[in-house]
Amino acid sequence: MSSERLTQQLAFIIEVDKLKSVLRQSYIANGSRRENDAEHTWHLCLMAVVLAEHANEPIDLLRVLKMLLVHDIVEIDAGDTFAYDVAGHSDKAEREEQAAQRLFGLLPADLAGELIGLFHEFEAQETAEAKFALSMDRLSPMMLNYESGGGGWKVNKVGASKVLKRVETIRPGSETLRDAAEALIHKAVTEGILEP
Amino acid sequence: MSSERLTQQLAFIIEVDKLKSVLRQSYIANGSRRENDAEHTWHLCLMAVVLAEHANEPIDLLRVLKMLLVHDIVEIDAGDTFAYDVAGHSDKAEREEQAAQRLFGLLPADLAGELIGLFHEFEAQETAEAKFALSMDRLSPMMLNYESGGGGWKVNKVGASKVLKRVETIRPGSETLRDAAEALIHKAVTEGILEP
Repeated sequence: MSSERLTQQLAFIIEVDKLKSVLRQSYIANGSRRENDAEHTWHLCLMAVVLAEHANEPIDLLRVLKMLLVHDIVEIDAGDTFAYDVAGHSDKAEREEQAAQRLFGLLPADLAGELIGLFHEFEAQETAEAKFALSMDRLSPMMLNYESGGGGWKVNKVGASKVLKRVETIRPGSETLRDAAEALIHKAVTEGILEP
Repeated sequence: MSSERLTQQLAFIIEVDKLKSVLRQSYIANGSRRENDAEHTWHLCLMAVVLAEHANEPIDLLRVLKMLLVHDIVEIDAGDTFAYDVAGHSDKAEREEQAAQRLFGLLPADLAGELIGLFHEFEAQETAEAKFALSMDRLSPMMLNYESGGGGWKVNKVGASKVLKRVETIRPGSETLRDAAEALIHKAVTEGILEP
């Protein structure tokens, strides 16, 4: 093992520590503060372990976890683009691709290639693993916004019709979880947490 | 699929959100604040993916990741016990076992059994996966304390002799990473970040 290789690996590990400082629009469940990308990613990974049985298709769980672990790392450079921010999404792909090249490029070439490949696989949404990983990423903020009494929905004045449209992005990964999310949205409207 | 089963799974996912509010003694790399258990766990999982080749023995990476994802969850009830706190460690095992039963017990019995099993496997430190998972858990604070200019070492007045003893707990999982950690500790002393 070359020590240059290990040096690159450790430098990458320190650089991506910055993900702990990238804030999302969602609040943690107790509503006390916004969630950051690193703790969000842990939550998605644990969700994937606990909810894997609800995937529409058989999935390779290790691949799902690896994909989730890296899926938001580009936001260290590109920032978190809010789900309902249309303008922010216009150049999102380009900004994120540059970020992927810089950040994963800190690693030895074989590892960089593997992790960039996982990031692209997630973005392309073609494999069963990418679809299930996305369903975790979409279900999570709905649960947290509900639990925190409105959280990011209220702050950003998002209503039920927009959220219900977003619920559909859970479907390719899991019909069961899509239905659970829809039920939660209706409950949120009934309870006055979310604008109809 | 019974909806009672899904209800239990979702209740567990919300309950463990509290891990985002359990603070550790380590600081994030930029030194601005203490790290929480959830973002710490994400970091360890990513480290395991990037550093797996340095394990002393062949490891099942999925098992390592699942073990890491759950290894600190008991701290929601039992709290984080600082590495160098002797008194706090006297009843740690008992407090954590009660926490494991309550928290994982929110899940359907089969999943509860699997995750409690992974937690026990980590604690027992007998398998190659448990040893490698621990080596991630021990290497991480050394890297973060170094990067943050002393972080938890300075706040808690921990000197090099104690840290060097702790470096040895990395060895069963990875000789290579133990050596890298030792080199980092010596560098920290030379640079005046850590008391000799």
